[in-house]
Amino acid sequence: MKILLTNDDGIYSKGIYAAYQELSKIAEVVVVAPIMEQSAVGHSITISDPLRIYEVSRKDKFFGYGVKGTPADCIKLAFYDILTTKPDIVVSGINHGANLASNVIYSGTVSAATEAALQGVKSFAISMASIDYTNFAAAAEFAREFSELFYKMDVNHNVVFNVNVPPLGKDEIKGWRYTVQGKSKYLDTFEKRVDPRGNTYFWLTGEKIEVNPGEYCDDYWISKGYISVTPLKYDLTDYELFNKLSERNEK
Amino acid sequence: MKILLTNDDGIYSKGIYAAYQELSKIAEVVVVAPIMEQSAVGHSITISDPLRIYEVSRKDKFFGYGVKGTPADCIKLAFYDILTTKPDIVVSGINHGANLASNVIYSGTVSAATEAALQGVKSFAISMASIDYTNFAAAAEFAREFSELFYKMDVNHNVVFNVNVPPLGKDEIKGWRYTVQGKSKYLDTFEKRVDPRGNTYFWLTGEKIEVNPGEYCDDYWISKGYISVTPLKYDLTDYELFNKLSERNEK
Repeated sequence: MKILLTNDDGIYSKGIYAAYQELSKIAEVVVVAPIMEQSAVGHSITISDPLRIYEVSRKDKFFGYGVKGTPADCIKLAFYDILTTKPDIVVSGINHGANLASNVIYSGTVSAATEAALQGVKSFAISMASIDYTNFAAAAEFAREFSELFYKMDVNHNVVFNVNVPPLGKDEIKGWRYTVQGKSKYLDTFEKRVDPRGNTYFWLTGEKIEVNPGEYCDDYWISKGYISVTPLKYDLTDYELFNKLSERNEK
Repeated sequence: MKILLTNDDGIYSKGIYAAYQELSKIAEVVVVAPIMEQSAVGHSITISDPLRIYEVSRKDKFFGYGVKGTPADCIKLAFYDILTTKPDIVVSGINHGANLASNVIYSGTVSAATEAALQGVKSFAISMASIDYTNFAAAAEFAREFSELFYKMDVNHNVVFNVNVPPLGKDEIKGWRYTVQGKSKYLDTFEKRVDPRGNTYFWLTGEKIEVNPGEYCDDYWISKGYISVTPLKYDLTDYELFNKLSERNEK
């Protein structure tokens, strides 16, 4: 199996290294990831600046290619210039922090996986659902197990999964579930400050508002100690509304 | 009617000014837009840098608030700090360039509209479907007409429309249609160059690959000279695949 591994926390992050160690047990792994942290970049691509590729070593050994760009740029450049053959699957992560409910739309981790699917390679994003928990061992093991399952899975090449792992040790995790994107929202607040020159600036903060986590929702299962696996798509059409409104078209 | 107007081309762009002129005929319009161009930023939010707000004048008059941040940041900051009451609708555009088919996922213009819907205000993105055409008159008029229709429309507050206008004069446009996101893809290529110091860098280029434009697709109707109006949603779950896979959950 050939795996392209990327992320949005950057090529020097702890999560991508944990994933690499487990995935390289079962596959030839090529790492192409942002040279600097790119969290919350969403599905950005770089069109106004040139992109560059750097060879990166970790623990004194060649680790992979660092791209001065976004996660989606990494996938595009990997396919265009770095990889000699298409990978079997693309893995994005392990992200340090949850990508659950509506937060998915801000996620660089998820966007890299989506970009891969757009390019015709099935892929999954994987995130540690807590910024306070720093042990990636159980998440990395699941990345390996799920890669093996996914590799054999009879699905289209444009399939994307969004995986979140609860902040627990391997023995405490109760299992995993296919889930849907949760409905929880985030109440945005800003911290308003004044800089030394007397000018106002803002830092985005905010808190989660639980919205009846349904029994199939990603955040519900995470809170119960399960790994959540949500299939995503990048056709954003609201077909229900389209079907209702399109009657007008006939006029 | 109260309208919040934003975009991703920046507060000094031609498209937002054209929209402002038409929308202010029917509504109180507050402009909150990026101070610098933010194209292809996708649904980015700024979490590692402070955000700032500047008062911006155009044609010697106060025009609106320029935000050092992304389109999604503009919406969040507008709701948190700038607006005193929630607007009735949010308009994002007029973008200079198409946001059709899979390109929607890279679009800052669309992401601003999506962010507004997440915050509970119905919204639409509007784009001129050509970078070569610079007459925004017909698009701006449609922005006004559609705003009036949308204001009265009995739909949820989380509805988002993605509007594209063909590069034609008002009399040449044949009408408008509710559409779905097209299936066309883009073949990414990069121009590889060497800088004066001998280092390689890349510019993203690329071309569109038409994929059987279906009769309901946005790009199909644009090519026929119609305005396309696609309802979007931000629940990215692939329910079809979820329903198929979730049988496993019962085990």
